[in-house]
Amino acid sequence: MKSPIQSYLETLHRQLAALRGGEVASYIPELTKANPDWFGICLVTVDGVAYSVGDAAQPFTIQSISKPFVYATALADRGLAYVSQRVGVEPSGDAFNSISLHPKSGAPLNPMINAGAIASASMVAGQDATRQWARIAESLGVFMGHDVALDDAVYRSESETGFRNRAIAWMLKNFGIIADEPMAALENYFRQCSVLVDCRDLAFMAATLANGGIHPATGQRALPPEDVERVLSVMATCGMYDYAGSWLYEVGMPAKSGVGGGIIAVLPGRFGIGVFSPPLDEKGNSVRGIEVCKRLSHDFGLHVFNKTRHPALAVGRIYTGADAPSRRAPTPAMREVLRQEAQRIKYLCLQGHLELDGIEYVIRRMGELAPESDSMILDMNLVEDISESAARLLNEARQHLRDEGVAVVFSRLRGRRAIMDPLSKTLPAGDHGYLSFEDNDLAVEWCENRLLGDLANPLADDARLEDNPLFKGVPEDMMRRVYALATRRAFAPGAPIFASGDVSDGKIFFIVSGTVSVLVPRPEGGHQRIASLSPGMNFGEMTLLGKATRSASVFADSKVVCNVIGTDDFNALAETYPQLKITLLENLAADLAGKLRRATDWIAALA
Amino acid sequence: MKSPIQSYLETLHRQLAALRGGEVASYIPELTKANPDWFGICLVTVDGVAYSVGDAAQPFTIQSISKPFVYATALADRGLAYVSQRVGVEPSGDAFNSISLHPKSGAPLNPMINAGAIASASMVAGQDATRQWARIAESLGVFMGHDVALDDAVYRSESETGFRNRAIAWMLKNFGIIADEPMAALENYFRQCSVLVDCRDLAFMAATLANGGIHPATGQRALPPEDVERVLSVMATCGMYDYAGSWLYEVGMPAKSGVGGGIIAVLPGRFGIGVFSPPLDEKGNSVRGIEVCKRLSHDFGLHVFNKTRHPALAVGRIYTGADAPSRRAPTPAMREVLRQEAQRIKYLCLQGHLELDGIEYVIRRMGELAPESDSMILDMNLVEDISESAARLLNEARQHLRDEGVAVVFSRLRGRRAIMDPLSKTLPAGDHGYLSFEDNDLAVEWCENRLLGDLANPLADDARLEDNPLFKGVPEDMMRRVYALATRRAFAPGAPIFASGDVSDGKIFFIVSGTVSVLVPRPEGGHQRIASLSPGMNFGEMTLLGKATRSASVFADSKVVCNVIGTDDFNALAETYPQLKITLLENLAADLAGKLRRATDWIAALA
Repeated sequence: MKSPIQSYLETLHRQLAALRGGEVASYIPELTKANPDWFGICLVTVDGVAYSVGDAAQPFTIQSISKPFVYATALADRGLAYVSQRVGVEPSGDAFNSISLHPKSGAPLNPMINAGAIASASMVAGQDATRQWARIAESLGVFMGHDVALDDAVYRSESETGFRNRAIAWMLKNFGIIADEPMAALENYFRQCSVLVDCRDLAFMAATLANGGIHPATGQRALPPEDVERVLSVMATCGMYDYAGSWLYEVGMPAKSGVGGGIIAVLPGRFGIGVFSPPLDEKGNSVRGIEVCKRLSHDFGLHVFNKTRHPALAVGRIYTGADAPSRRAPTPAMREVLRQEAQRIKYLCLQGHLELDGIEYVIRRMGELAPESDSMILDMNLVEDISESAARLLNEARQHLRDEGVAVVFSRLRGRRAIMDPLSKTLPAGDHGYLSFEDNDLAVEWCENRLLGDLANPLADDARLEDNPLFKGVPEDMMRRVYALATRRAFAPGAPIFASGDVSDGKIFFIVSGTVSVLVPRPEGGHQRIASLSPGMNFGEMTLLGKATRSASVFADSKVVCNVIGTDDFNALAETYPQLKITLLENLAADLAGKLRRATDWIAALA
Repeated sequence: MKSPIQSYLETLHRQLAALRGGEVASYIPELTKANPDWFGICLVTVDGVAYSVGDAAQPFTIQSISKPFVYATALADRGLAYVSQRVGVEPSGDAFNSISLHPKSGAPLNPMINAGAIASASMVAGQDATRQWARIAESLGVFMGHDVALDDAVYRSESETGFRNRAIAWMLKNFGIIADEPMAALENYFRQCSVLVDCRDLAFMAATLANGGIHPATGQRALPPEDVERVLSVMATCGMYDYAGSWLYEVGMPAKSGVGGGIIAVLPGRFGIGVFSPPLDEKGNSVRGIEVCKRLSHDFGLHVFNKTRHPALAVGRIYTGADAPSRRAPTPAMREVLRQEAQRIKYLCLQGHLELDGIEYVIRRMGELAPESDSMILDMNLVEDISESAARLLNEARQHLRDEGVAVVFSRLRGRRAIMDPLSKTLPAGDHGYLSFEDNDLAVEWCENRLLGDLANPLADDARLEDNPLFKGVPEDMMRRVYALATRRAFAPGAPIFASGDVSDGKIFFIVSGTVSVLVPRPEGGHQRIASLSPGMNFGEMTLLGKATRSASVFADSKVVCNVIGTDDFNALAETYPQLKITLLENLAADLAGKLRRATDWIAALA
């Protein structure tokens, strides 16, 4: 299928290719060689899918689009305190080549004007200008996802004609903003502006910022997350020079343009855009580039201040232990307690990235449910991560609820460090940890046990054959004949009793003492427990219907003793006493019908 | 349960109450009467829940916090074109009382400085200043959720001492920015600054902006959504005067402060914050107010450029028609086709608010699944809404897939205008509409019918009793005896055959021709179809197990003819021929076991 996103971009490209107006940059001769018809667009998602159209592979020089990335590198290398003393973050309201230094400190007002960018280049790590350049090249390479190359002719041309920038560099030296040799730092700035990129590179650089600082394709971290917010903030207020206010107003995405004809725009958490078209407006921004961003923003409602989050999405389905009981087969006494009480077990399926607003909603729902709850299972399967601050609130809520007698447990957390670490780090004083279960079945069984109290324990006395529902209605004299068929077998804890796929030996097992788990293989590997059986229950009874293989595996959970009877023996007895077989089959069918009814209820609760 | 959010705010309040420094505003005598210890915080979620702490109900004058709301009113009343000619949106980099007019047009640089605010007040709808004030008061009242009241003493004091603002108003008149009498417009500006608010009002005003322009508690629309983005943009770049760049950099939320000691901050789509503490720093911002916003932003990662969206969340579970077949009981021939083909039916559960990035991901997954699919069911149950642009792309993808032979249908859309309207409005040329089903069961049955072709039609020939699986293995001579027990009954389309809860008459029904639906009552009212049965199938057979009442309702979908046999007649025959009863029970149990196995698979796919 051809992607409609791709089609949309192709249509947009076709329409805007017709847009005339603007002039190719001419302040250095090399830039005048650009073809005004070149026009490329690339959009890259935070999971690394690139949609390209037009001249997206045409190389050109990055120019001022390098500024946020070199500023980012300085922040990462020197820290916020050092950098913020030397370069401000206030919009200047002036054009790109304005000097705009703070009247007292001499600090450039922000890193997007030339003065701030030259200062930034002088601050990256490296003992001398050569090593600083290596650091800049390496850092830009991580943002792009490959090694950088220079356009030497553009670099020489910039260096030979950059008189105003020389003046700025000396002013910065005068104020002590540049510590070392200013002309060497300036050369690095000229070099960074001459780095070759294409639209695709720009879109990946933007997408790296959109993705919290991690390159969506290589997975390499280019920048710590806290610096990403800072860089995007400066782009939002200062990225488009004296057009910055209108840009945020109209387009609403942090962006940066360069006189080479490139523009990047970032929608945080969503995607990065790179556009290339050399003709510039009088403010030095690509005419088609601006129009592409405006159209994309308008057509898809991409303004960052567009309403984008919905806390209620943090909670998916809510259902109860009555809707989805554990797979443990309950005794009649257990069933009666659970019939009355199981709705006091609540499942809450949380989802997404849990932060303040989402967790506020989760906690609010938990508070509302508390009066009618004995326990809550937070199913974390669809949760991506939880912030430390959100985890702290959740732990506090858990503690409050515990004080009110409501237990809160987690399920499906295994190996999920992005959830477990924040939860562990933010335990309130006196809280020794949270309870977590492999799956909802184990979690709900634990919750049921709270409701069942002593009933939860398997029968202390050994179960008799006639306690088994399969023998319900079989007269006493007939049971004596049944006993004569039975042999006792014992299994050690963990022992397999039979395995899914085994050829059936026709044996039916009646548990005298201990418990067993019934497991079925999962298509994706591993097993799922479908039932837990206790004394007075039976397994392997499907062999009564003539099944040739076992459809499930059964393991002893504890030391287990069973009465075992062969189907052949039953059938031989039934030759003389057909009513025995009829009763067994009626009991078996009634048991299956009950299980089917519960499964149907469960499906209704899940769907 | 006490909310941990509430506890957090209380702790924050206690800690910051100790913060000293700053001076209560003194440029008019009335403001000096404020108690420097007053300190309130309120946070309101987009669904209207308010968390308040401290002096959140202490009234004070709104002052400059009125500016974005009156500017918003001018935008709503006059439109973007009119307003943007008269007030810019570029940060001035200057202090709040800077005049900052555009050197040529005389337009104030932005609406957050006094000049821009006075111009905004002069632009709201109304034939004269009195009616304009009524409009301002009405609009502020909608944002607050109740009628406004003035602090007359403050208003008189502002009016008596506002010499600089008089100068500004005459400058605006000089440039033609103010069309009418400038002193009358200025009085309205003084009035709007003297409106009484408390923290809770401020938080609701902020939350109204966070909520796309709709007051979270009253549900009244205060502003069109496109103007909300504009107002938030101006707050982001200009809201904190010459501190705006640093504010976005450090706190990362659109905000506005007033000399009364109030601050509002907005996290779009999430919540609004109102803080009140009179002592101000040298830039005119509340000292404690700024610290509250910084701490909230830092503790909870609230920066707007924090990575906030995850497109993959647009798709929840994906499973196939093999995991969750329709409830129609298939004939053996149908079952064989479906065994091989049903995995070519895909369910995709979409969720949340579908916009460009989410739909891009949805379409990408659809494209990946297409080669192994015959049809796709988009389950829309968890979708809140879809933007028109996203709906257009989804419709295009649907058309592309149809051309490739893959059908895309929707389920669970009923009454959901926020999804149906955008889908209907954006149908591509030549597309007459989308196919939509009440529930997944009806949708998957339609998809199965595509795979089944002619097999999907009920048997054309009448089914015989011996075709019924319940009689599998019953010898021919015995079947003759069974036939002797049967009577024929016919039902009109739509006729109830029996109803859930009916006392059972012991009849078992064997369908000769036509189809029936089996329905169970839902706890929340209504019925759910759990099966659809065709000729050669039976219903009511649970009576064989001695059930006294019917557990489901059965309706004739078409004209239906059945063979009907009473359980008593079976049992009488079984007295002589017990093997008949054994065979029936074996077949019944095997059928139930198969259904239970499929239900278990279904549960595994859903959970």
